Amino acid sequence: MDLYNLQEKTAFQPGKMAKVDLVKSAHMMSGLNCFEPGQEQKVHAHGGADKLYYVVEGSGEFEVGDEKKTLSQGDLIYVAEDIPHGVVNNSNERLVVLIVIAPNPFG
Amino acid sequence: MDLYNLQEKTAFQPGKMAKVDLVKSAHMMSGLNCFEPGQEQKVHAHGGADKLYYVVEGSGEFEVGDEKKTLSQGDLIYVAEDIPHGVVNNSNERLVVLIVIAPNPFG
Repeated sequence: MDLYNLQEKTAFQPGKMAKVDLVKSAHMMSGLNCFEPGQEQKVHAHGGADKLYYVVEGSGEFEVGDEKKTLSQGDLIYVAEDIPHGVVNNSNERLVVLIVIAPNPFG
Repeated sequence: MDLYNLQEKTAFQPGKMAKVDLVKSAHMMSGLNCFEPGQEQKVHAHGGADKLYYVVEGSGEFEVGDEKKTLSQGDLIYVAEDIPHGVVNNSNERLVVLIVIAPNPFG
């Protein structure tokens, strides 16, 4: 069984957000984005692929298109293909986000 | 922003597992499967679509192919296309599972 405990998979690094790849197939990719306070994921877009962000731990500011919102543990957002999106951990706690992108833009 | 708080979206019903649809696009569908103790999702398969299960709350027995495992809050599993899978809430607490299927088999 392709089983991952997200708490065990969480990893951080100084200087920039840490990415932890979990699932890679043709249909999707999934992994963790782990932010120390102050770290960010610059605004970017995936051509032809949708994305989900699910906040596993902490909170931070999420930007999608021309909207910005502070999301917290338990929040899920959907980002349609080609829409610019990014994240800033503007909190004082660690932020852990589960991401799913479909289809896999790196596959 | 297409934002969903999973705690607020959770819903249960007597008699059978409750499904809560959240996201539907060509590339993916996502929603919640909410199980009272004793409720189940019978073994089934999605032709040509991969699935993720993420345990948001509680625990239960997950079956994938010929394997069965008890998963708890924080566990994520990947089910490749065409592989039979199902869930039984054999615990005494409610079980809430986030699912993602890609591409959307119902789209």
